[in-house]
Amino acid sequence: MIYSDKVKFILNQYENTNAGIKANLGRILMSGKLSGTGKLVILPVDQGHEHGPDKSFMVNPEAYDPTYHYELAIEAGLSAYAAPLGFLEAGAETYAGQIPTILKINSSNSLSSIKNQSKNGTVKEALRLGCAAVGFTIYPGSDYQYDMIEEFKEISFEASEAGLPSVLWSYPRGPNIDKESETSIDTIAYATHIAALLGAHIIKVKPPSSSVTNNDLKKQYSKFLSNIESLSDRIKHIKKSAFNSKKLVVFSGGNAKGTQEMLEEIEQIKDGGGNGSIIGRNTFQRPRAEALQLLQSVINIYKK
Amino acid sequence: MIYSDKVKFILNQYENTNAGIKANLGRILMSGKLSGTGKLVILPVDQGHEHGPDKSFMVNPEAYDPTYHYELAIEAGLSAYAAPLGFLEAGAETYAGQIPTILKINSSNSLSSIKNQSKNGTVKEALRLGCAAVGFTIYPGSDYQYDMIEEFKEISFEASEAGLPSVLWSYPRGPNIDKESETSIDTIAYATHIAALLGAHIIKVKPPSSSVTNNDLKKQYSKFLSNIESLSDRIKHIKKSAFNSKKLVVFSGGNAKGTQEMLEEIEQIKDGGGNGSIIGRNTFQRPRAEALQLLQSVINIYKK
Amino acid sequence: MIYSDKVKFILNQYENTNAGIKANLGRILMSGKLSGTGKLVILPVDQGHEHGPDKSFMVNPEAYDPTYHYELAIEAGLSAYAAPLGFLEAGAETYAGQIPTILKINSSNSLSSIKNQSKNGTVKEALRLGCAAVGFTIYPGSDYQYDMIEEFKEISFEASEAGLPSVLWSYPRGPNIDKESETSIDTIAYATHIAALLGAHIIKVKPPSSSVTNNDLKKQYSKFLSNIESLSDRIKHIKKSAFNSKKLVVFSGGNAKGTQEMLEEIEQIKDGGGNGSIIGRNTFQRPRAEALQLLQSVINIYKK
Amino acid sequence: MIYSDKVKFILNQYENTNAGIKANLGRILMSGKLSGTGKLVILPVDQGHEHGPDKSFMVNPEAYDPTYHYELAIEAGLSAYAAPLGFLEAGAETYAGQIPTILKINSSNSLSSIKNQSKNGTVKEALRLGCAAVGFTIYPGSDYQYDMIEEFKEISFEASEAGLPSVLWSYPRGPNIDKESETSIDTIAYATHIAALLGAHIIKVKPPSSSVTNNDLKKQYSKFLSNIESLSDRIKHIKKSAFNSKKLVVFSGGNAKGTQEMLEEIEQIKDGGGNGSIIGRNTFQRPRAEALQLLQSVINIYKK
Amino acid sequence: MIYSDKVKFILNQYENTNAGIKANLGRILMSGKLSGTGKLVILPVDQGHEHGPDKSFMVNPEAYDPTYHYELAIEAGLSAYAAPLGFLEAGAETYAGQIPTILKINSSNSLSSIKNQSKNGTVKEALRLGCAAVGFTIYPGSDYQYDMIEEFKEISFEASEAGLPSVLWSYPRGPNIDKESETSIDTIAYATHIAALLGAHIIKVKPPSSSVTNNDLKKQYSKFLSNIESLSDRIKHIKKSAFNSKKLVVFSGGNAKGTQEMLEEIEQIKDGGGNGSIIGRNTFQRPRAEALQLLQSVINIYKK
Repeated sequence: MIYSDKVKFILNQYENTNAGIKANLGRILMSGKLSGTGKLVILPVDQGHEHGPDKSFMVNPEAYDPTYHYELAIEAGLSAYAAPLGFLEAGAETYAGQIPTILKINSSNSLSSIKNQSKNGTVKEALRLGCAAVGFTIYPGSDYQYDMIEEFKEISFEASEAGLPSVLWSYPRGPNIDKESETSIDTIAYATHIAALLGAHIIKVKPPSSSVTNNDLKKQYSKFLSNIESLSDRIKHIKKSAFNSKKLVVFSGGNAKGTQEMLEEIEQIKDGGGNGSIIGRNTFQRPRAEALQLLQSVINIYKK
Repeated sequence: MIYSDKVKFILNQYENTNAGIKANLGRILMSGKLSGTGKLVILPVDQGHEHGPDKSFMVNPEAYDPTYHYELAIEAGLSAYAAPLGFLEAGAETYAGQIPTILKINSSNSLSSIKNQSKNGTVKEALRLGCAAVGFTIYPGSDYQYDMIEEFKEISFEASEAGLPSVLWSYPRGPNIDKESETSIDTIAYATHIAALLGAHIIKVKPPSSSVTNNDLKKQYSKFLSNIESLSDRIKHIKKSAFNSKKLVVFSGGNAKGTQEMLEEIEQIKDGGGNGSIIGRNTFQRPRAEALQLLQSVINIYKK
Repeated sequence: MIYSDKVKFILNQYENTNAGIKANLGRILMSGKLSGTGKLVILPVDQGHEHGPDKSFMVNPEAYDPTYHYELAIEAGLSAYAAPLGFLEAGAETYAGQIPTILKINSSNSLSSIKNQSKNGTVKEALRLGCAAVGFTIYPGSDYQYDMIEEFKEISFEASEAGLPSVLWSYPRGPNIDKESETSIDTIAYATHIAALLGAHIIKVKPPSSSVTNNDLKKQYSKFLSNIESLSDRIKHIKKSAFNSKKLVVFSGGNAKGTQEMLEEIEQIKDGGGNGSIIGRNTFQRPRAEALQLLQSVINIYKK
Repeated sequence: MIYSDKVKFILNQYENTNAGIKANLGRILMSGKLSGTGKLVILPVDQGHEHGPDKSFMVNPEAYDPTYHYELAIEAGLSAYAAPLGFLEAGAETYAGQIPTILKINSSNSLSSIKNQSKNGTVKEALRLGCAAVGFTIYPGSDYQYDMIEEFKEISFEASEAGLPSVLWSYPRGPNIDKESETSIDTIAYATHIAALLGAHIIKVKPPSSSVTNNDLKKQYSKFLSNIESLSDRIKHIKKSAFNSKKLVVFSGGNAKGTQEMLEEIEQIKDGGGNGSIIGRNTFQRPRAEALQLLQSVINIYKK
Repeated sequence: MIYSDKVKFILNQYENTNAGIKANLGRILMSGKLSGTGKLVILPVDQGHEHGPDKSFMVNPEAYDPTYHYELAIEAGLSAYAAPLGFLEAGAETYAGQIPTILKINSSNSLSSIKNQSKNGTVKEALRLGCAAVGFTIYPGSDYQYDMIEEFKEISFEASEAGLPSVLWSYPRGPNIDKESETSIDTIAYATHIAALLGAHIIKVKPPSSSVTNNDLKKQYSKFLSNIESLSDRIKHIKKSAFNSKKLVVFSGGNAKGTQEMLEEIEQIKDGGGNGSIIGRNTFQRPRAEALQLLQSVINIYKK
């Protein structure tokens, strides 16, 4: 596998990172149809744990089967497939080596109102399953955030020693963060920066809105960052918060409703320098053929 | 021991599972009168811990004696016998090798109103007692759920390394889950799916009612899953939630009152593709002869 | 030391129990004046920790001295002496080998209103002191019960591996358990059964009253267990809850006021099949000669 | 070093205690001007942590310097010097071997109202600093008491294995203990007895007042212990609570205001059989010469 | 590297400290333009974690890039550069050996109102990054203080064993400490003394105001310490609280607004015997050239 210049450049920015981690980051960056572009499209399927199987899969019942997602991700030529232990385990032999996998270590569920997560997997299991990375979620601002952060640090430290990079879902929420703030540009910038400081290798955040919700920052933004009306400008700012673009940042599907709107959003993520998309619901909740077509469109955008 | 095709098929679905776990799952699937059918009838006796000895055994006082349950399960030709440490220990030598046993690791008791459980046994003790699996209970939705899940993961990880499969009792309860929701089809599907994602090898849930209690799902169900009026259709849906039937799911006795009603329920569990029944109270609270006759009827249904 | 048939019979019921534990149970059962009878009289002196030295010893000031209790227990020919670390340590050399000792691992104190205990000793210290068993208290029903139970399990697991049996004080208390319930026959049966399920080798409970305090059980008791008016019948029921008498159960002094009343109670414990008495306050709060005479009377009853 | 008969007698009472602990207790008992008398005068300087440097040292500013206290204790010929990590470390080389030191492991601070302490040192650090013992504080009756006791037990267990004795500050406080109760004779007796049961080798309590604050004990005291009006009689009772005088008990300065009053109090501690004094504020808050003179007077009393 | 007499004198005061710690303290004291003077100017950049990237870097957007801070600190000739894991990692290879680095282990974030911090790094990572020290923050007086102190002790113990000194940010806050008290001279003296007792090698506090907020101390101060009107006298007192100047104490930028005011403050810190400044916001929030000029002025003051 010969790295493209883009991939070399990206990996060089992860300095003081061990060879195992670089090899696994390289594995993800060189997989699928976006191989070598420095862009990523990842399929995450933790929806069944977070919201239940019926809310996730009823509209497209083939998706109850864990092999469906492996095959969808492989056929679509994605960069990686991320899921909790059970889902990965159910295809880890059959699909071994066909797509890099990411073990999503912790998960919440919507049966309870406590905004916390439990660790449902271990680094040892990620290694046994041949994963290329571990995934973890933190809620900056939550009452449980300090524990969640320390749990992430333990997992990512152990993963690092085993040569596994960590992908961090950084989702602000908590008593001081209202609905609007959860996706305001200043909050998303903060969540991104914390993830980078914690040593995450790939950062996942939601696409930022044009709101600035921290009162002290409203003046600052209007003075120093006049261009945040377009999503691409906001993505650029988020990348800036990720160590001046030194870290890979990928974005979830956001609030986009129709396919067209979603693809336009992805155009802007691309224009702003975002490293790609993590798209779950928007793929496995469509019929397979439609999902494959959508993913091809997404890939086409990132390939441009 | 030559595996039947049914058992081979089931075990093949547990891919990326080590040989020890497969051997013990095979041991359970090849034991008793249902040997080789892919169906299971398990006797669980943690009732004494959960509700006290008098509520459990007074109507049939022979059942105060732990050897009673070993003998009942063996004579009835069941697939396995599950109980807490003390009960298993009291017959582990006498009945060694006569029936697979499952150490029920955690238990609650009804003296307190806190909806939690304590770990009353260890994987090392399960090994010492020659068990074929460990059993654990989680309460998805409870305020203690995240701790319970992490405790299960620690136990099941250690058990897996020792080649012991895990049986997970997944019983939704908690502040957001009213009585009706505890057995509504959408909640049971959720509880089943979580258990599967956590890597449990055998999942125990209650038979689902025809209620759909999550408001967002009411429309979904009426649109996509019109046939949930019969229990067999509901069981089919629960199995679908268990990785499209890839995981073994067994059902507790449910609310059935009379013997006839209970057997009819089991007919439907069978028809829906359920892998069997865990029947406690309904057996050891009857006179021995009557219990044996009932269990034979249950086995006959699953054998059909 | 040649075991009597009684002792052999009792030890045989502890099946799947390692040789070290059996040897230490045998040591206790073959010590003192009740050697070989299968009956036990144990002196417990944790009263100083639980209620303070003055409430415990002021009426009989010799008892402030830890050597007093060793000598009382030895001279009375008791089966064992149980106390916290400091008290045992103060005579462990002088009286080595003269009476089996039980290290009481956890204790409460009455200065605080929190119904919990702290672990004040370890299995390693029990071994260093040459003890024949470890003792522990749980409060089934308390808000701390799940932690206490898990602590007991850790201690008893470690003790078992070192060949030390565990003696479990099982004292129901907590928000759902009023004063009457603490000693009602159904609650004591429950506390006994939990202790047995947890794997305790000797169970200590209070003598049960004739109250039935769980509403669901009132009908059950009047239907199935008409004879609970005499203490001996109640003791029989408690022994039944201890795995149909397979586990040793000893009883504390209870509410008995006068000596005569106490001895009558012990007659009934004996008649009901109880394995003996743990008598603290009723001995060390009398002048030494009087205490020795009382203990002789107790022993005489159990010897009959 | 040849032990005096007094010291031999004291050490013999610590039976079942390992040679390292005895050697270190001997080291303290044979140091300074009270060498061999079985009496101890110890300088404790944790005041800076507990109340801040200004409240502690401003009246005598030389005392801000940690070397001041080493020199004071050495020149005064005291038995030992006790302080937190930083203070000991600052002179551990310069004054090595000139006086036994006690590492005070835990400390509170008065900036917060939570009645807890943090562990600020370890047994390993005590060993590295060449200490002769470790010191610890518990608050019997506090909401944190069970944790504090378990922390003490962990520290003292580890210290014991390394041959280090433990000195336990046993200070009753908490929601059920009002100001008067903190030093009432019955509470101090209880605190002393708990410390002894926990296995502490040297017990530090406050001098008891003549109040009896536990209602049940008021009658008891007037019946059995008529002589508690003089401090020396009360000290005798406290020593009785320490295993009938088998454990070393030292007393803090108490409420004494003037020098004369303080010396009279110490006379009574001595007459009652107390093993000595721990005097902090009353020494380092005076000019050095005055402090040395006072300590000489104290030593003279204990030498008589 | 030949130590200056100043540095030798300082290191000699850290007695009973291992060679590795002394070597690393020496490394910091001999680095940059203040090499050998016994004075330190340190650049700390944990602002991005504590207050977010936008509040920290928007006014000077080059500062979003972690290499900016390395280069600023190196070019300015500072003594050390302190930052969280991600920031250090991003330049640890490129700038290896060019400036001593301090891994800031724990951090808070302003998204939540809970006054706690999470550990975001480990001693092992500090070693991997080639750091010269670890940094930690405690909040004396906070409800979390006892946990924070114990966490610091664990980190600093492990760091010490690896030869890494610890830098302790000691920032009083909590329910009993109002805004004025957070920087009052008596509170700062207390915070400094606690840090010293905990064994920190370099102590960071805020410059003290002339308020005395503890009521008991108001009289004391007016009696014993009449000269606290000038900052240099207050700094002298803080140094006195640091074991009579035996420990290195550095000060943050304080409330100074303009450059002139800030430099005057630093003059007084120097005059009072303070060991230097930790200046973050006041440098990286200015244009680079201006920041370099300011730092040169600060260094000039300390060099005088």
